[in-house]
Amino acid sequence: MAGMDNDLTFVSAVELAQRIRARELSAREVLTAHLARIEAVNPLLNAVVSLDAEGALRRAAELDEILIRSGPVGILHGLPVAHKDLLLTAGMRTTFGSPLYATFVPDRDALPAERMRLAGAVRVGKTNVPEFGAGSQTHNPVFGRTRNPYDPSLTCGGSSGGAAVALATGMVALADGSDMGGSLRNPASFCNVFGLRPTPGRVPNVPVKDAWFDLSVVGPMGRYAADAALLLAAISGPDPRDPLSLPEPGASLLQAPLARDFRGVRVAWGADLGGLPFAAEVLAAFEATRPGVASLGVALSDAEPDLRGADEVFRVLRGWQMATTLAADVARAGPDLSPMVRENVAFGHTLTAADVAAAQQQRTAIVHRAGAFWAAHEFLLLPVSQVLPFDVETPWVGRIGEHSMPDYLGWMRSAYLISVLRVPAASVPAGFTAGGLPVGLQVIGRPGDDWGVLQFAHALEGVFQAGDRHPDPTAGT
Amino acid sequence: MAGMDNDLTFVSAVELAQRIRARELSAREVLTAHLARIEAVNPLLNAVVSLDAEGALRRAAELDEILIRSGPVGILHGLPVAHKDLLLTAGMRTTFGSPLYATFVPDRDALPAERMRLAGAVRVGKTNVPEFGAGSQTHNPVFGRTRNPYDPSLTCGGSSGGAAVALATGMVALADGSDMGGSLRNPASFCNVFGLRPTPGRVPNVPVKDAWFDLSVVGPMGRYAADAALLLAAISGPDPRDPLSLPEPGASLLQAPLARDFRGVRVAWGADLGGLPFAAEVLAAFEATRPGVASLGVALSDAEPDLRGADEVFRVLRGWQMATTLAADVARAGPDLSPMVRENVAFGHTLTAADVAAAQQQRTAIVHRAGAFWAAHEFLLLPVSQVLPFDVETPWVGRIGEHSMPDYLGWMRSAYLISVLRVPAASVPAGFTAGGLPVGLQVIGRPGDDWGVLQFAHALEGVFQAGDRHPDPTAGT
Repeated sequence: MAGMDNDLTFVSAVELAQRIRARELSAREVLTAHLARIEAVNPLLNAVVSLDAEGALRRAAELDEILIRSGPVGILHGLPVAHKDLLLTAGMRTTFGSPLYATFVPDRDALPAERMRLAGAVRVGKTNVPEFGAGSQTHNPVFGRTRNPYDPSLTCGGSSGGAAVALATGMVALADGSDMGGSLRNPASFCNVFGLRPTPGRVPNVPVKDAWFDLSVVGPMGRYAADAALLLAAISGPDPRDPLSLPEPGASLLQAPLARDFRGVRVAWGADLGGLPFAAEVLAAFEATRPGVASLGVALSDAEPDLRGADEVFRVLRGWQMATTLAADVARAGPDLSPMVRENVAFGHTLTAADVAAAQQQRTAIVHRAGAFWAAHEFLLLPVSQVLPFDVETPWVGRIGEHSMPDYLGWMRSAYLISVLRVPAASVPAGFTAGGLPVGLQVIGRPGDDWGVLQFAHALEGVFQAGDRHPDPTAGT
Repeated sequence: MAGMDNDLTFVSAVELAQRIRARELSAREVLTAHLARIEAVNPLLNAVVSLDAEGALRRAAELDEILIRSGPVGILHGLPVAHKDLLLTAGMRTTFGSPLYATFVPDRDALPAERMRLAGAVRVGKTNVPEFGAGSQTHNPVFGRTRNPYDPSLTCGGSSGGAAVALATGMVALADGSDMGGSLRNPASFCNVFGLRPTPGRVPNVPVKDAWFDLSVVGPMGRYAADAALLLAAISGPDPRDPLSLPEPGASLLQAPLARDFRGVRVAWGADLGGLPFAAEVLAAFEATRPGVASLGVALSDAEPDLRGADEVFRVLRGWQMATTLAADVARAGPDLSPMVRENVAFGHTLTAADVAAAQQQRTAIVHRAGAFWAAHEFLLLPVSQVLPFDVETPWVGRIGEHSMPDYLGWMRSAYLISVLRVPAASVPAGFTAGGLPVGLQVIGRPGDDWGVLQFAHALEGVFQAGDRHPDPTAGT
């Protein structure tokens, strides 16, 4: 890959935006460098599954003219981005990873895509997902498998797997992900990038079938916390179509600095969330981060919230929602549909109204109990994933050490139990195993404190990483 | 009622608070005047059903000492209040209007009661409700009927009926109400006081069985919008136990003035919400307010949101919730329980998980449609109730003009359809019929704009009322 200008594709999005704004770089130059990366590494990794290079070049040229004529259109002016293929994109194919939608071209953007466009982003394409986003890997019958850039024989995680790989390899500067039970955190952890599951309501869910179902959220991904903070500011803020959206305008997030002194801040060092199995390498990597965390001067103590009942809450609410939103698709698709989707929908159909109410009441009790935990601790640290990246041919993890997993959700509990708490949670790149695989640290904050999580992640980056240059996982290829 | 110091019981809570703070009045003097009103008028009207005069006198004396020693404890310092008997009060009987709880004394305050106490309120007692709050009248087997002070042969409405009557007659300076389908608006309308159903999340629901059920909200009641604004500021603000509570601190509401120039503000003049029947006197009273509204210089236009489907949404979600929260009580009570509660719980048990999801999806679609309405209009005006106060012996309205009502909820649609929109809605005293019965104007605002509704109500008060002194409905007795 000689001659490629990786200098432009591995710096931070924040720096790129500054240099474009200062007219040191044109949006076209930046885009061209990223398109070259896609051309070079995407054939093997399969992260960007729909690409509109021509449209992106036109848009970049237009943004270059606008900048000269009247200044930047927004905080993402000229930054190349890709959208998750679960997110509706006007005029660009949106497949949900399903053959049912292989040729579906929406006529409107989902709100996060629209806000990114209005903030000046350059839409390059779409990033791969598992069928209907079910499962924390990334393969589907439309586009096939997405591979881990640190070892293409392994999975990149999912469901925001294409986004994580595109970021890790410098194909885009920023990407959106989404997360019901870890879909934004697991791939970030597996691919050494940053992903934030925001507090529900921070990024309005528009369009959405049931606005009261708040387990699934859209969030920002980037190589650095500061990059994700920039994207979060662009896509946050209330929208009347999402009645649970938070009232704070997105731009107001950027008024508080990302740099912060963490001395004395009370941080809980989590264990196994009530008995979850973890792979030995994951626990070793987690423990290895402790001195770095402590070096920030935080007041570390061993503690975690009581999440009893959260497993059933997550499964009931998720099954209920999948059954009611995907029933028509399941009927159309028949046996061709991913068994993971079919099984969840079938489970959802067995639920009664009383089961759903019991789950919501149980979730309420869990959140109440967690109130005492959050009064004593500002952050909770955990491993993101219970396992390292696994074989790309394996649909899901069947066993962790001595423990067999009951189903495809079993290995994802360290992420999805946290979703039940309705708190922001990030995956922060925290280093590599002896075998060279990345491991993420899960940084979990108080309800609504998305900015605090970004600040803490930013501080941890300073500890965990040598410099401010993201490593190119494909540099040796 | 010679010799009673009504000068203290019919001025505004805002003025009382100022005069207490300035030490022109003691909390004891203010309380004594209100207790005298309770003694004089409550035997007939039956609004305050649990009374702790001794405890209140001790508390008032304590607050007088604290004021001298270290200043006011909060914005409600020294104001006599009563809590709705659905709201848990530590050490004070809380019956929910049900014989099952006739002797139940909670050991903790619900959050609004706790916040009122911490803001310096003096708890006088509890206000009457229908059994478990079901129905918009106020009678129950524990305490009997609450009567309308403007005509004791008529109902005061409900379920916050005791609160409305206590305020209308100067028994308390402020009171909390709650509202799922009009429980705070109908009694305010029937009793010539002000009641605000806030945006869900403005006043956290703590404790609550299912925090995701947001149709039912606690809100402030007073004789004036400014009084309710003071109470709203005291009870608003986030609480970690209510994950849907809004992040804005309550005190920050008071930073914006209540007075506002409404010239040019776009206001929709509603009609019949898609065909609801209204009593002729109600429509006449509504029309009679139009010149007063117009005199503020607003840009009035005839418009209303499309609420098709909202009736089923409300009934399904309410039935589902009642079934799952009251099932144990229904089983214990057997046939003695209010048929309104029993019927709703029985209906709730027939619902499937798919019915509930369909209702939430339908509600989402209604809120989406309303977005266009709210983009074009800042406020919507409607009658609060479809009927005037009716016979106190009648459990519910069976007929409006030529239209027979299918059940006890039928006549409450002008209030409960608005609840589906998840917007703030107030009842503003708007005058009297030729027969001397009060009629409220429903002022509905954009999602989250509780303060705007209070501002508009405040401006309308200046138009509708001769002075700033509330009329004493019992003055002629």
